[in-house]
This record gives sequence, structure tokens and C-alpha cells, in this order.
Amino acid sequence: MKVRKVLELLEARGIDALVVASPANVTYLTGLPRSSGTVLLIRRDGRVVALTPALDYWRVLDSVRGVEVLPYSTYSLPDFEVSLAEPPHAYIPKFLKSEGVLKVASDSPYTKISAEVSKALGTEVEDLSEALADLRAVKISEELELMRRALAITEKAVEEVLGDLRVGTAERAIAALVEYRIKLGGADGLAFESIVASGPNSSYPHAAVTDRAIGSGEPVTIDVGAQLRGYCSDLTRTVLVGSVPDEVRRALELVAEAIDEATDAVREGVSAEEVDARAREVIRRAGLGKYFIHSLGHGVGVEVHEKPRLAQGSKEVLKEGMVVTIEPGIYVPGRFGVRIENMVLVTKTRGETLNKLSKII
Amino acid sequence: MKVRKVLELLEARGIDALVVASPANVTYLTGLPRSSGTVLLIRRDGRVVALTPALDYWRVLDSVRGVEVLPYSTYSLPDFEVSLAEPPHAYIPKFLKSEGVLKVASDSPYTKISAEVSKALGTEVEDLSEALADLRAVKISEELELMRRALAITEKAVEEVLGDLRVGTAERAIAALVEYRIKLGGADGLAFESIVASGPNSSYPHAAVTDRAIGSGEPVTIDVGAQLRGYCSDLTRTVLVGSVPDEVRRALELVAEAIDEATDAVREGVSAEEVDARAREVIRRAGLGKYFIHSLGHGVGVEVHEKPRLAQGSKEVLKEGMVVTIEPGIYVPGRFGVRIENMVLVTKTRGETLNKLSKII
Repeated sequence: MKVRKVLELLEARGIDALVVASPANVTYLTGLPRSSGTVLLIRRDGRVVALTPALDYWRVLDSVRGVEVLPYSTYSLPDFEVSLAEPPHAYIPKFLKSEGVLKVASDSPYTKISAEVSKALGTEVEDLSEALADLRAVKISEELELMRRALAITEKAVEEVLGDLRVGTAERAIAALVEYRIKLGGADGLAFESIVASGPNSSYPHAAVTDRAIGSGEPVTIDVGAQLRGYCSDLTRTVLVGSVPDEVRRALELVAEAIDEATDAVREGVSAEEVDARAREVIRRAGLGKYFIHSLGHGVGVEVHEKPRLAQGSKEVLKEGMVVTIEPGIYVPGRFGVRIENMVLVTKTRGETLNKLSKII
Repeated sequence: MKVRKVLELLEARGIDALVVASPANVTYLTGLPRSSGTVLLIRRDGRVVALTPALDYWRVLDSVRGVEVLPYSTYSLPDFEVSLAEPPHAYIPKFLKSEGVLKVASDSPYTKISAEVSKALGTEVEDLSEALADLRAVKISEELELMRRALAITEKAVEEVLGDLRVGTAERAIAALVEYRIKLGGADGLAFESIVASGPNSSYPHAAVTDRAIGSGEPVTIDVGAQLRGYCSDLTRTVLVGSVPDEVRRALELVAEAIDEATDAVREGVSAEEVDARAREVIRRAGLGKYFIHSLGHGVGVEVHEKPRLAQGSKEVLKEGMVVTIEPGIYVPGRFGVRIENMVLVTKTRGETLNKLSKII
């Protein structure tokens, strides 16, 4: 189904062969993990060749269907039982030339493979990175199902550690515990490096996890995600431990309100900047606009950040089947920060929040 | 110290400015996490500019010394309190042109930044990726200390789960537990996706973790690593659960013997292929050469795979201060696999095994 979408794209653009070298796109099209080192060559006639490192050959052969798998090695392996292809940047240009392929595209224009193909064929390699990103942005039902499950695993893990969020517990211990529960819950991995940021650390949107112990009356921002068969979830909750200053509680209520406003605006045909503006306006009205220092959200899929971007000036338009995060935050440098993040599915008529967990917990 | 090594390189090559866009190199030179999105511009006079996404500006400013930090944004952020630079691929070419910089190098030749710099200055951008990789391959004492600690955390975590490696336990549960202990042990993250592969799954060198329950008489390969302040460890042990067939036990003893042989060969001045050959010969003599389907090992540092590569045909020569893995394996397709992996420091006279854990546990 996903390969078929790519073939339609090649047909529409009159492209004979596409080199897929971006790990995320390889995962999207084959289900192989991001680290597999596999490069795909997709021909307009539907033939797909996967060049895969020799040490992963048997695994890829056992797990991928409808694809011709060729092992390669960047070093000598004379004992290997199957004859080895040259590495992709050498094999693909020669192969395309020998087959007389004329019009080639790539999902990764700035790579050695693209440069070598261009040199071998004496022609420009068309850049399909944006077109593939657009195609990936709209999810089919099996992708949505994996993302719902990845989010459910993540929410359950966060709920389960709430009882451990006590004064004196280290950020690191909370992060280790949430991740343990995510993995045990069935995730194949984390979607990104977890954030557990307490007190002043919460003022950094991308705080690193530290050994700092949670203090009384502090916000603790937990931003974690699961990866399930290649698909990501992305969840943030800010938990208030003990009796926090009114200013912090009000900021948290404000971002919750901003989420509601933005979610209300989501539907097919709405511009990404309009959704961002709706949330931002809530925070600006409270005089805190200068503390909301990032975009409202982003698409999620095989990458935790993909198209579209909900940001000021973004000309992208929402389509049915897109899944975006809505994650307003307020960060007062050196003092505190709060953020809440939901995942929202775009439908023809509305934004469907995929989260079951309350925004304020 | 590490920046100084780079400045000496620029001096020696007569290069005026270096663009550092590879996340691993940014981590190496600044200690920032790999995901920071920061790009460095290093001038021969020692001036270093870090272009960092606006949302990470305050954190980077608070954590990096001796560097001028400029926030940028790929989308509009009119409320941001500090004036924003253009994104690196736009800012850097203009800046270099306006300053009349002549000779520019990059650590990432196949990037949009390099292409734009080349266009703006009307000159080739020199490719320093290999030179920086060579420089990173030789560790200074503070790097060695972090890697020793990262390995100690990993070994402790693996030792602690040995009691849980019982018939009926799922691979996923073991992986979740090892990772939990690695994180709780003080690691900032994992060095790579963990492998816990039981029975036939162990025949894949890069097996994915599954829900498979460990059976009696099976090998379980555990390949895990910690990341500590940017530096990686990489450890593999194959644990035999219950009474395994003699063939499996002998294979495990063989890879242990291959490690001893190879470690014996390590010292400054020895070629990487010679070390690989010493281990491979042990396995070939036993008639199992065709089942050792990868190279013997690789350098470790801010990346879990870096220079040098211990492989057949590798012309690299070992130098004092390099840290390499030695990880022979035997993989019988569809049946079983075994691998043991140590980390070894190259000294003038010998290979110093950094592991404390026995090879067969």
C-alpha cells in the first residue's frame, strides 16, 4: 500500500527509478528498523531491490516480503556464502547505467549516492524528499493503529509513575522508570530521548535528564515517547509536585486552554499557521507570548518530527489522516517551565485527540 | 583541548574556517547532546560560533563555555527576546562571504550547508570528515574516563539481570530490565538499540528484541551500551540458559579464544586487518569461518561505531589511545548464534581490556 503510493508518485512524475536512502523512508516502506543500513532502489515497474549490509542479510531476508535483497559489505568478507554486491554508492550508479535508466530521483539529495548517480548518468537526480515527506504525512489506517497503540503504551507508563513523583526523587530515577514501563508495555524502543525536568530545569524545552531531586512545589515536565514497529508517539505532561506557586499553576492552566483552542481549529483544509495562531493567542493575551519560544507542534509518524509543522508562517495545509502534536509551552528562563502535549488526528470535520490521559494530571 | 586539536588541523591545512554540522562532531567539541540541532563555525583564530535552535538557546548558553551562541529558527518567532539568525545553511555562507573568508572546510560534505557555502564563495569546500574522524579515534584521558565509566555501568547492569535470565522470561522483559539498570546506574542514555536475542533469534547479529520466551538449553545474546556525557560503551555477552548443546558451548568457547588471540595482537603500529585476521583464524581453523559474517570490531567514542574498523582489507593502523571493540561471533542461520564483545584500549605495547566482566558468564 505504501509502496504503491510511491509508485504512483513515480508514474505521475515520469521517473524511472527512485533511490531511497533515508533511514526513516526505508522504515516507512519496509518496516525495517532505522539502523538497518539498508538502501532501496524502486523501479517504476514495481521492482524493489534492498541493498542490505551482509551481517543483516538473513534477518532482512526473513522479515521483508516482495523485495529482492542483495547483501553488500564495505569491507572484504571472502567467506560469506552469498555473493556480495558493492556498497550502494558504487552499486546503484553502475546498475542504473547498465540498465539504461534515464530519469532517476532520490529521497536524499545531499548524499554520496546521489552525487555518484548524477555523475554516472550525466544528469541531475530529481529531489523527491519533499514529495515523500508529504506522502508520509498522511497516514493509512494501519499506521494510525500503531500510533494509537504507541501512545496508549506511553500514557500507561506515565500514569504508572505518578505515584513515584515525590519530593526527593531524582529526575533520572523517574526517567528510568517511565522508560522501563514503556519497554515492558510492548514498545520496540523509545521515540526520542526522554525529558524529565524539574524546577528550574523545566524552563528548558529540551532539558537533559539530570540527578536533580524533585523539590516541593515544583513543576516536573515529562516528555516521552514509544516507538512501535517503526511508529512513534509523543506525549508531554507537566506534573505539579506539592503546592506550587499560583503563577506556575496558572501557566499550566493556560497551556491546557491553548490546547483546547488549537484542537478546536483542527480540520482538513485549515492552514498550519492558523492552528498555531489560535494557541499562541491564548498565551499572548495573558502577556506570556515571549515565553512560548517554539512552534505549536509537528507531524508524527516513523519520525517523531515530520510534516506538517504547526508554526508561525507555515503555509502547509492540514489534510485528513495527518497526525500532529499540539504542545504549547511557557518557559520563564532560570525559573520554571510548563508544557502539555497531545497527539491529534486531522479528520474532514475536526481534530480527534488521540490521548486518553487528562491534560492536567 | 579537543577544539585545540581541530585548530591545529586547520592551521596545518591552511584552512580559514570549518563548518561542523555532524551531530557527533558537535557533541565531541561541545558536550551538547546529539539531538541539539547545533551547527558550529570554527575560525582559525580560535573563535567558535554555535548556531543553535531558538528553543535550545538558553540551555546551550548555560552549558557551553568559550563559544558565541546565536539562536536561529526555521520558522517565524516574532516574540523571541533575542534577535534570531537565519538557519545555518543561509547564515553561514553569507557570513563567510561578508568576512572575506577564502578557504573553508566542512565535516559534512554532502549537506545543504556545504553546497550553499560552495556556491556563495565560488570555491570547493574542503572535506575534513575523514581528518576529524581520525582525530576523534585517538582519545584523551577525560574521554577514556567517561568510556570506562559507561562500560562499568553497562557491565553492572548485565550482571544484575543474570538472575532474571530464566526459561520462560521474554526477551523484551530482559531488555527493559537491563536498560532500566543502565539508566538508573547513571547513564544519560543508551548507546544504541539493545539486542536481547534468544535461541534462533541469536543467529541474527542485529536481532530485534521480541516477545519470545527464553527456552531451555538456549544461548541468549545480550548486546547493550550506555552513553555517558556523550561517550558510548558497547558490551556483548552470550549467556547459556540451561544445558545447551555441545555445539553451542564449543562455539562460545571458540569466540572467547578468538578474543584472547586478537587482544594479544593489539598494540600501536599493528594494522587493523592483522587483528581481525588473528581472531578469524581461530574460527576458520574450527571450520566455522563462513559463520563469522561481520568484521571483528570498530572504534568507539561519541559514536558507537567510529574509526578504526578492524576488518579484512582494512589498511588502518592502530594508534595509542584508540579504543576498539573486539567482537567475534558465529551465526548459524536459522539455528543459533553466539558473540562476545570486549572494549580494548590500544597502548604502545599491548591491548588493555577495559572490561571487568568475564567473557563467559
